[in-house]
Amino acid sequence: MQGVRAVVFDVFGTLVDWRRGVARDVQALFGDTVDADAFADAWRDEYQPTMEEVRTGRMPFSKLDALHRRNLDRVLARFDVDAHESQRVVLNLAWHRLDAWPDVTPALARLRTMYLVAPCSNGNISLMVDLARRNDWHWDAILGAEIARDYKPKLEVYRTAAAAFDCAPQEVLMVAAHSSDLAAAAQAGLRTAFVARPDEHGPGRGETAPAVPVDLVARDLGDLADQL
Amino acid sequence: MQGVRAVVFDVFGTLVDWRRGVARDVQALFGDTVDADAFADAWRDEYQPTMEEVRTGRMPFSKLDALHRRNLDRVLARFDVDAHESQRVVLNLAWHRLDAWPDVTPALARLRTMYLVAPCSNGNISLMVDLARRNDWHWDAILGAEIARDYKPKLEVYRTAAAAFDCAPQEVLMVAAHSSDLAAAAQAGLRTAFVARPDEHGPGRGETAPAVPVDLVARDLGDLADQL
Repeated sequence: MQGVRAVVFDVFGTLVDWRRGVARDVQALFGDTVDADAFADAWRDEYQPTMEEVRTGRMPFSKLDALHRRNLDRVLARFDVDAHESQRVVLNLAWHRLDAWPDVTPALARLRTMYLVAPCSNGNISLMVDLARRNDWHWDAILGAEIARDYKPKLEVYRTAAAAFDCAPQEVLMVAAHSSDLAAAAQAGLRTAFVARPDEHGPGRGETAPAVPVDLVARDLGDLADQL
Repeated sequence: MQGVRAVVFDVFGTLVDWRRGVARDVQALFGDTVDADAFADAWRDEYQPTMEEVRTGRMPFSKLDALHRRNLDRVLARFDVDAHESQRVVLNLAWHRLDAWPDVTPALARLRTMYLVAPCSNGNISLMVDLARRNDWHWDAILGAEIARDYKPKLEVYRTAAAAFDCAPQEVLMVAAHSSDLAAAAQAGLRTAFVARPDEHGPGRGETAPAVPVDLVARDLGDLADQL
């Protein structure tokens, strides 16, 4: 990876296990009255369509927390759950309380000794800050959607992240467990590394190999740090 | 400081000694052919007028690095210094190589155990990242002018910083060595703490006490951490 000065990361799925984290908080609030895994999946399914409204300009930019809340209200209705406002506020912040995959924290610390590091996520700044505090990550900056005021895979989000570090796009390596994210990053001029998260959507339900050309393929973040 | 969840900091003068850092790099490049202290002062004197062009809308937002470069070219001409392009590029990054006042790094680490912490500076993200790396600071996020796409003391810069942390303005404490910065922060609804930097502009040339009402007054950042 000659010439790379910064590494930026997708977060949901790539660094943190959103499905088990969200399901855990659903379960804690509603017990066995709700299928917590199905609820987490349904909530996540609303993710792309809502961002698409921002990407296409039908809706002005708003933080992912606000989009999550709108989607939460819909999913609660669909699952026929009667939740108080205070429960909705708490549950919406489940995305701020996600745990990293076990390989992530030590590997990020290693990568930071070699490169500038930042998230390039669709999550808002405060969400990224809370995940960093919880999982003991040391970012150089929080980059991504809130800085660019648009959502990945819009190319401007990747380019704004590179520019914030005073890097040309090809000096930045984008790391993700999702081929669609890496395809867009490559189109924006970044280098790309695929990290496998085979259980992201439940056991055996995640990408195991990239479906697009990438510069690096890694089993996990420790393997990526080894290769770099 | 009941209810405060985040502390944000002015950087030039408050956390770092810009005058000695800039003068050191001027001296290293041009030796005794230039009065390095006078050069640093002249460069800094261009700071507010250039930002004012952005604040008033006469110029679109551009990073402080770009404003510094424009001002550097002017000051070099005024000091009758014949500098190569490569020297100008290196010297412009003097602002990325500034050293913290001795009390800053340990106090920031203590404050981070109690509060979210971020710079709220007019410096761009990459400049803040380089200062953090150099001085061993752990910010939760890099906030300030580049996020708000305007320059302090415009109120939007302080409000954007608070909003990025999901804080109401009164949940954020702004720390600065400059009364004008704190007056604007207070107008934006933030709490304010004055830190004395009596030698900012050279021995005995800096603010020793606030000229406006503030919530806290501290001798240095260690004293501020003690008080909090």
